[in-house]
Amino acid sequence: MKESPLFWPAKLKGDTLFVLDETLLPSKQKYVSVKTTTQAVAVIKQMKTRAFGQFLVVLNTFLLVLKQDKKSSDKVLFAKLKKAADALNKSRPTFPFSEVTGMVLGWAQGALAQNKDLRSTLEKSINGFLIGIRGRRLERVQKIAEVIAKTKTVLTHCNVSGELAMAAAICKAKGKTISFFATETRPYFQGAKLTCWELKKAGVPVTLVADNAVGTLLRDKMIDAVVVGSDRSCANGDFANKIGTLQIAVMAKEFGVPFYVLTQPSNKVKKGKDIPIEIRHEDEILKFNGKRIAPKGVKGLYPGFDVVPHKFVTKTIAINVN
Amino acid sequence: MKESPLFWPAKLKGDTLFVLDETLLPSKQKYVSVKTTTQAVAVIKQMKTRAFGQFLVVLNTFLLVLKQDKKSSDKVLFAKLKKAADALNKSRPTFPFSEVTGMVLGWAQGALAQNKDLRSTLEKSINGFLIGIRGRRLERVQKIAEVIAKTKTVLTHCNVSGELAMAAAICKAKGKTISFFATETRPYFQGAKLTCWELKKAGVPVTLVADNAVGTLLRDKMIDAVVVGSDRSCANGDFANKIGTLQIAVMAKEFGVPFYVLTQPSNKVKKGKDIPIEIRHEDEILKFNGKRIAPKGVKGLYPGFDVVPHKFVTKTIAINVN
Repeated sequence: MKESPLFWPAKLKGDTLFVLDETLLPSKQKYVSVKTTTQAVAVIKQMKTRAFGQFLVVLNTFLLVLKQDKKSSDKVLFAKLKKAADALNKSRPTFPFSEVTGMVLGWAQGALAQNKDLRSTLEKSINGFLIGIRGRRLERVQKIAEVIAKTKTVLTHCNVSGELAMAAAICKAKGKTISFFATETRPYFQGAKLTCWELKKAGVPVTLVADNAVGTLLRDKMIDAVVVGSDRSCANGDFANKIGTLQIAVMAKEFGVPFYVLTQPSNKVKKGKDIPIEIRHEDEILKFNGKRIAPKGVKGLYPGFDVVPHKFVTKTIAINVN
Repeated sequence: MKESPLFWPAKLKGDTLFVLDETLLPSKQKYVSVKTTTQAVAVIKQMKTRAFGQFLVVLNTFLLVLKQDKKSSDKVLFAKLKKAADALNKSRPTFPFSEVTGMVLGWAQGALAQNKDLRSTLEKSINGFLIGIRGRRLERVQKIAEVIAKTKTVLTHCNVSGELAMAAAICKAKGKTISFFATETRPYFQGAKLTCWELKKAGVPVTLVADNAVGTLLRDKMIDAVVVGSDRSCANGDFANKIGTLQIAVMAKEFGVPFYVLTQPSNKVKKGKDIPIEIRHEDEILKFNGKRIAPKGVKGLYPGFDVVPHKFVTKTIAINVN
C-alpha cells in the first residue's frame, strides 16, 4: 500500500527529526529539522504538524533527548526526559500530550526500578511502541476501507493523517472508486490543503466545499457516510476533534447519514465536558495570509476544537488495542 | 436613526444609479455607476450587490429605462421594459427576480390598459413602492430591536442589509448594548466584511467566528438568539438564505436557541424544495484573492444558498404588508 506523506509525517534520521511542514502544503512538501525539545514544541505550537504528527513528535523528542545525551547518569537523564515532557505537555491544551509523555516517563521509571539501562531500555520501548502503533494504524486503514467500500460518497472534515486517503486507495485498487467531499476547515484550510492534496495524490476524486455547505450536502443525500478523526477520546465515547466536527455530527444525525469517527483508546478523561478546548489567537481568524479580513476593532474567536457527544456517533473505527 | 450604508445600498441620482460595491468593503466604500440594464445585470452577477441591494437595482433599472427613453411610444417603451425584465430575471436564479419584475410589468400593463401615460405612471408607482418599502423596512428594524433587546448576544450569518446593525443601534441608544457574533460566511466573507463593518460603524461589539464554530457557540450557550435574513420565502414558511443558514437553524433547534428570520411575503413558491438553488462557479471556493487554495485537479462545489424548513424557525420577523 502506498503511504500518504501525512500518514507518518515525522521521521527520525540520525539525531534529527524531520517533520513535514503541513502549513506549506499543497504547494511545497518540505520537512522542518527538529533537534531540540524547544524546536519540537515550536512545530507543534505553530501547527506545522498536528493530529497524529504531534504524537510522533512527542515520542521522537524523547528519542532525541536520549541520542543527544550519551554520558549523563540515569538520574540526570530522567530529569532531562521529565523536563522535555513538561515542555511538551504545555505546548497545546486539547491533544492528550500528558497521557503520551506520562506513558513514556512510566516506561523510564520502570526501567529505573528494575535497574535496567535507561537509555537502551527506553529507546527500545519507544521504538517498539512506534512499530506497534504503525501496524495498528495500518490495520485501521483496512477497517476504514471496509466501511467506505459500502458507500459512493464520503464527507470528511479537517484531515485524518493519511488513513482515509490510503483506505480510498485500497478500495480503488479493488475496482471501487469512492468520491470524497472535503470541507475547507477554516481558518487553517486543512481540508483544502491537506485532505484534498492527499486524496488527489491517491488518484481519488475529491470536491472541496465551504464548512457551511455541509448541511445542504447531508440534507440532499449527496453523502453516504461521514468519516472524521479525533484528537482526544473519552471513556464515555465523547470525543474532541477540529472545530466544526460537532455541527457535522448533529447534521448527520438530523438527516440520517452514518457518522464514523476514528478513535484511539483514552480513558483518562471521563466525558467530553472534561476536555480542555484550546482557544487560538484571534489573528488566525481575523487575518488571511497576513492581511486583515474584518475591519479593525472587530474581535475574533477561534476555538481550535469542539466536542462531539457519543450519541451522535454511528460507529467508532477504533485502533486495535493488543 | 443613523442609516447603515448597507440598508439602502443603491441610490439614483439623475440618470445614474450608484450601487455600493460590497466586494470592496470594508477597505473601500465605493459606488459603481450603473446606467444600463447590462450594467445592472453585471453588478448583480458579480455580486457587487446582493440581498436587498438586488431588489433596489431591479426597481431602479426600470427607472433608468424610463429616464433614458423620453421619446418612444408606450408600446415601444413597454417592449424595452420587458427586455430589461427578461435580462434581470436571468441574472441569478435564487432571488425572486421574476416576482419583482413581474410586479413592475403588471403596473405598466395596468397603466396601458387604463390609457394612462406609461412613463409618468410607472415612475410614480415605482417611486411610491420604494418609499413604502423603505418605511416598512424601518418598521421591521424596530421589530428586530424589540426582539434583540431581550438578549445579550446575537449570532447572525451573512448580512441582513443594515437592519440588524440599525436595530442594535436603537438598543444601544436606549442604554442596552448587545454583543454580536458574525460568521465569516465563506467563501465571500459577507459576515467578516459587511456585517462586522456595519456593526462596528454602529458602535456595537462584534466577534468574528468561522462558519464551523457555530455549533460550539450554540451548544455552550454563548448565544441568546440567532437572527438571519432570507433571500426568498415560501408560502409554507420555508425560506432560502445564504449557504450555511440551514445548519445554523438545525443547531439552534438542537441546542434550544431561538432562531428568527427576517422575511418578506412571497407566495409564488409553495415550499422550500421548489426554490432553485444557484450553483456558483467552483473557482469562488477553490481560489482566494485569485490564488488557488486547493491543489489543481480538485473540484469545488459552491451552492450559493440553502433552504431552511419552517419547522426550524422560532419566529419570523416579517415585513408589514400594506
